[in-house]
Amino acid sequence: MLSLSSGVSVVIKIGIIGYGYWGPNLVRNFSEIQESRVIAVSDLDPKRLNLVKTRHPDIQTEADYRALLANPGIDAIAIATPVSSHYRLALEALEAGKHVFVEKPLTETAKEAEALVAAAEMRNLVLHVDHTFIYTGAVRKIRQLVDNGDLGDLYYYDSVRINLGLFQHDINVIWDLAVHDLAIMDYVFPLTPVAVSATGISHVPDKPANIAFLTLFFDNNVIAHIHVNWLAPVKLRRTLIGGSRKMVLYDDLEPSEKIKVYDKGITLNGSKENLYNTLIGYRTGDMWAPQLEITEALRVEAQHFSRCITHGEASLSDGRAGLRIVRILEAANRSLREGGRPVKFDWLFGNATHSDRLPVEEAA
Amino acid sequence: MLSLSSGVSVVIKIGIIGYGYWGPNLVRNFSEIQESRVIAVSDLDPKRLNLVKTRHPDIQTEADYRALLANPGIDAIAIATPVSSHYRLALEALEAGKHVFVEKPLTETAKEAEALVAAAEMRNLVLHVDHTFIYTGAVRKIRQLVDNGDLGDLYYYDSVRINLGLFQHDINVIWDLAVHDLAIMDYVFPLTPVAVSATGISHVPDKPANIAFLTLFFDNNVIAHIHVNWLAPVKLRRTLIGGSRKMVLYDDLEPSEKIKVYDKGITLNGSKENLYNTLIGYRTGDMWAPQLEITEALRVEAQHFSRCITHGEASLSDGRAGLRIVRILEAANRSLREGGRPVKFDWLFGNATHSDRLPVEEAA
Amino acid sequence: MLSLSSGVSVVIKIGIIGYGYWGPNLVRNFSEIQESRVIAVSDLDPKRLNLVKTRHPDIQTEADYRALLANPGIDAIAIATPVSSHYRLALEALEAGKHVFVEKPLTETAKEAEALVAAAEMRNLVLHVDHTFIYTGAVRKIRQLVDNGDLGDLYYYDSVRINLGLFQHDINVIWDLAVHDLAIMDYVFPLTPVAVSATGISHVPDKPANIAFLTLFFDNNVIAHIHVNWLAPVKLRRTLIGGSRKMVLYDDLEPSEKIKVYDKGITLNGSKENLYNTLIGYRTGDMWAPQLEITEALRVEAQHFSRCITHGEASLSDGRAGLRIVRILEAANRSLREGGRPVKFDWLFGNATHSDRLPVEEAA
Amino acid sequence: MLSLSSGVSVVIKIGIIGYGYWGPNLVRNFSEIQESRVIAVSDLDPKRLNLVKTRHPDIQTEADYRALLANPGIDAIAIATPVSSHYRLALEALEAGKHVFVEKPLTETAKEAEALVAAAEMRNLVLHVDHTFIYTGAVRKIRQLVDNGDLGDLYYYDSVRINLGLFQHDINVIWDLAVHDLAIMDYVFPLTPVAVSATGISHVPDKPANIAFLTLFFDNNVIAHIHVNWLAPVKLRRTLIGGSRKMVLYDDLEPSEKIKVYDKGITLNGSKENLYNTLIGYRTGDMWAPQLEITEALRVEAQHFSRCITHGEASLSDGRAGLRIVRILEAANRSLREGGRPVKFDWLFGNATHSDRLPVEEAA
Repeated sequence: MLSLSSGVSVVIKIGIIGYGYWGPNLVRNFSEIQESRVIAVSDLDPKRLNLVKTRHPDIQTEADYRALLANPGIDAIAIATPVSSHYRLALEALEAGKHVFVEKPLTETAKEAEALVAAAEMRNLVLHVDHTFIYTGAVRKIRQLVDNGDLGDLYYYDSVRINLGLFQHDINVIWDLAVHDLAIMDYVFPLTPVAVSATGISHVPDKPANIAFLTLFFDNNVIAHIHVNWLAPVKLRRTLIGGSRKMVLYDDLEPSEKIKVYDKGITLNGSKENLYNTLIGYRTGDMWAPQLEITEALRVEAQHFSRCITHGEASLSDGRAGLRIVRILEAANRSLREGGRPVKFDWLFGNATHSDRLPVEEAA
Repeated sequence: MLSLSSGVSVVIKIGIIGYGYWGPNLVRNFSEIQESRVIAVSDLDPKRLNLVKTRHPDIQTEADYRALLANPGIDAIAIATPVSSHYRLALEALEAGKHVFVEKPLTETAKEAEALVAAAEMRNLVLHVDHTFIYTGAVRKIRQLVDNGDLGDLYYYDSVRINLGLFQHDINVIWDLAVHDLAIMDYVFPLTPVAVSATGISHVPDKPANIAFLTLFFDNNVIAHIHVNWLAPVKLRRTLIGGSRKMVLYDDLEPSEKIKVYDKGITLNGSKENLYNTLIGYRTGDMWAPQLEITEALRVEAQHFSRCITHGEASLSDGRAGLRIVRILEAANRSLREGGRPVKFDWLFGNATHSDRLPVEEAA
Repeated sequence: MLSLSSGVSVVIKIGIIGYGYWGPNLVRNFSEIQESRVIAVSDLDPKRLNLVKTRHPDIQTEADYRALLANPGIDAIAIATPVSSHYRLALEALEAGKHVFVEKPLTETAKEAEALVAAAEMRNLVLHVDHTFIYTGAVRKIRQLVDNGDLGDLYYYDSVRINLGLFQHDINVIWDLAVHDLAIMDYVFPLTPVAVSATGISHVPDKPANIAFLTLFFDNNVIAHIHVNWLAPVKLRRTLIGGSRKMVLYDDLEPSEKIKVYDKGITLNGSKENLYNTLIGYRTGDMWAPQLEITEALRVEAQHFSRCITHGEASLSDGRAGLRIVRILEAANRSLREGGRPVKFDWLFGNATHSDRLPVEEAA
Repeated sequence: MLSLSSGVSVVIKIGIIGYGYWGPNLVRNFSEIQESRVIAVSDLDPKRLNLVKTRHPDIQTEADYRALLANPGIDAIAIATPVSSHYRLALEALEAGKHVFVEKPLTETAKEAEALVAAAEMRNLVLHVDHTFIYTGAVRKIRQLVDNGDLGDLYYYDSVRINLGLFQHDINVIWDLAVHDLAIMDYVFPLTPVAVSATGISHVPDKPANIAFLTLFFDNNVIAHIHVNWLAPVKLRRTLIGGSRKMVLYDDLEPSEKIKVYDKGITLNGSKENLYNTLIGYRTGDMWAPQLEITEALRVEAQHFSRCITHGEASLSDGRAGLRIVRILEAANRSLREGGRPVKFDWLFGNATHSDRLPVEEAA
């Protein structure tokens, strides 16, 4: 579809389905980078299409997304619609030979995600999930700190994402907010989750849970906890990452110093023979807030997606990453329904199974 | 033991067992209020006893706590020793006819707590557990807001207590820190917990969990979550209480404005027939930080304990409250060992039972 | 120029001179309100005009502002150019019969400001200065609190506006940042300033002061202090207003709760005969953060300006307000050059005079 | 008075005059260090002396301070009384051959301070002023950063010390609070102040100013500003220090990270010939919060004072430092009375003189 010759820069032509809450950000970023151009936008709502016309008189608007899929001048489709439509739209786009950029979470079920991954790989097309956070300067810095060994052995990931609204009608608060943390961990942690326990509740009759707490068990004695709430009086976006050498506080609402690296921790003094007598010491050193890249994450991501197509870069949040996260979300839902009963993953077989042998017992 | 006649103020004479971390606060407060006097202190460590002598030359010091129990001039015993010794010391004190003030948590097992409650009630002695937080101006104000109906229907309790240290050797972080929240809820919430799910992990071999997350399910669709960690780079003591009319943020580390009351929430618009179409609105109004009583909590509590003895006041944190909390802690430990599997309480029979029928399922 | 008849809504047609840092905000707001329409924009820089064309294909662009003044279809001119050009451009616009909206500060000298006021009043045209802050929900709430007497007698105004950059080349940091506070006080305080003392320094050779401190003395023992700095490592926008009954903290960087009202202060107990023995008591009560209007200030202001033209509303930041502030700025510059020597205002004669009799001495 | 021989550690014997607000801290610290012992305390108020007896049964109490001066077993006198009595008490103590430790500010006038310095030097006695802040880990770290050149050229010192209360009756808020900043600058800055401008006001009839703003001009284009207020609804203790290479934020109320070092600033690009065209760039790098010594400042200071006596260490806050600060305070009072008129120092002649030639003019 693309002819790449040295010295000639190729511009990816994008069609965007959905111009609701997030779509305008996609249009703006894919328009403003040199690597891509937005050809057309579709939306079911004529008012939203009018808004596109006013803001971007040069972009074609369509009520029916199929016009975009049928357009041979379009290389890639970006999908910013409700989760329930992701699977069908992405599949049709892949079948039409388009590269695909989908909002998170990838699909409503792991089975659907697997099908999309297969469809993309079969056709050698890029399937990219919009895990925006991993393209922020903050998360890229955390990844660097982990990779460099600056944190030492990883101990825990602990995140709080709470605020008032926006209640979703079709997915619960885990699928809406915790998905960000799952994507961050998938990118940053060189670890495999083994089980999940989730609790939560809905305060609105017949609606999905609006407050939830998710514990993820990893191998190597690492634990993650994600705390999400649509009904909180204050807004918090705060993540702690504990390691044996350093600990990180990542506060996404800080205007500057989003990342603070603390030289704090414990020291263990004791013989191997007599672990019971281990003496625990406390270590406190400097704190350091590294300067971060401040380019808008979605811009970095749009450029990366374009280069995945033109230069064959591997997407950092490809369909397989999207699938891994949907698997955890599915398992979390099951645990949530069962009051926190842990659900164990059986990654070899590609699906989560219910287990009576519990991870903590095994780890102990 | 006490002869109360009108116009004559009775001074309670106290013996204190344990002069470690918390003991000095007990000695100071029971010494400085008019309602009581500290007669003697015992500790196994001669250095600690020397410190008592230097600071309080008029207080008798004893290596053996039995000297305190045998002293007919002592009305009440305060116990500030490791948890594992609470049961035995409190029981001996009650058997010696002394009123008892014990550090939290009351005992290591619910069975022990039941035995202490029975021993105190049989002898008509005061058995009081040091749930210090419920005597703070902040928690008393929250209780008032709940009692007045200012918060409306309760939705959730969500608490974070994290910092670096102090690792305990015999109890896990739930028994050390979450116990504060359990005591606050026991005092503030007119609700009965029905089940608990707890997850957590230890990062030190053969030591109790140093990071843990506890979800408590109440009847009426109320949920509580407690988040405790001895290995965090920052110190937080922050609790959110959500209600249908108002929401409270209680930050114990704020030097002033520890309590903020937010007029925020959701409004539901929809017919009963068609709940699926419920429209959720968001409501934002003023925030209000009420002035709080600033008397030291332990002083308020020491006076209350004294009046329980002299005036027959009912202790706000009596043995039965202590027992309720130990029951939850015991169940939390069981859930923790099983990776979050929910443990249901059967309050009628006074013990927690493992249940396959899960609370969230029932509530739905 | 405008024919107002009942039932017919009149749309003000605007021409905007200058499309640099602030111009785009003017274009956006005057475009999006129903009360006005932007007809044309002029700028000396063709690149900026191209940007206008891209963003607003329906707005006419002109390299020469005189095309706007000559356009009979334009009712009002908004000027968003460097301060040094305000006087000339505003005067020409008034002489062309246009209403005028000018960026702050109105002019470089009080004499020029007086001339503009006279020119506008002679022609019965609206002359409006863009004192944006007084159109924020926060400042309007403060005005309300002062008007209602909630603060009691006013004691002081104390403001800190610091951050890194943006160094101006032609005006010092007082004219750039303190002007906001002078405008707020002009709007909120029913008081007349009597003298000013300013200190400051430049850290860049031959450039205007980049750090400055300004004290403003009012009658009635009220004092104001403004603290501005372009070379600070952190950004602060924080104002305290002290009154005898309540005190206000206004933090413009807070995402919510920008205004906090403290029921704090002192109480004086003492006979008039023996003032020396006055006992001072300290009073602490609740804190309250009222909900604020969140409409963008410039939108509120654009609507207000339009109604000044169509409905004869009196501008809240008219030329006379702009003049009062330029007088204070001029006096501040004189004091700044003289190391803080106070400069007294003689408002009757419309100009500031240097006085050996100092305000504080007189007030004492 | 002291016989120092190698291997024998000498313990300084201290008498303390005044057991009001600060005296207890002196007694506690001089008692708990090995270098000194508190022999006797005097106070005019018998209740305060009773408190000493209760807390420290082994310390002698005296209603008349002269008993301390007459006691040959006392080596040094610490004076914690109102400022107005400092001069007389310190002089008598020196005349009695005692080393002297005085609360800040040293005296009410520079003349008195000079007399004390002379009296101490004549007798070869230690005269030490309690500038506590310079013994904190935070200020010692700042001194280190300045000495190492980490900050580059110094640009400014900017401090805010505000809160509600405690109104003093005999000194204004500059003498009470700004004195801390003057002492810190005296210790940290290798610079000589050349003039001061101060403004402020009293809101209580016939009482000293309770809100004040002080600008201090140094040579080398360095400026300092101190902002003090007894009538503020919030408590702030925040100092910014700007340098050409780094900038420091020192927040004394932060429980940890009291010092933050910002790699921020401006860069100047321009030829010397054409300064007008200097381009200013903005530089932003990492932030760093060094770990600080957390020993109580007064303990460090008490040990230092003792070693000044026993080992001939030079006091870091000796009488001459106290005198320098009283000179600035005296000049500030004069400027305050005159509405901010700058008062220039003539250090060669040891006194401040009023000058028509203003520092800023000279610097320009």
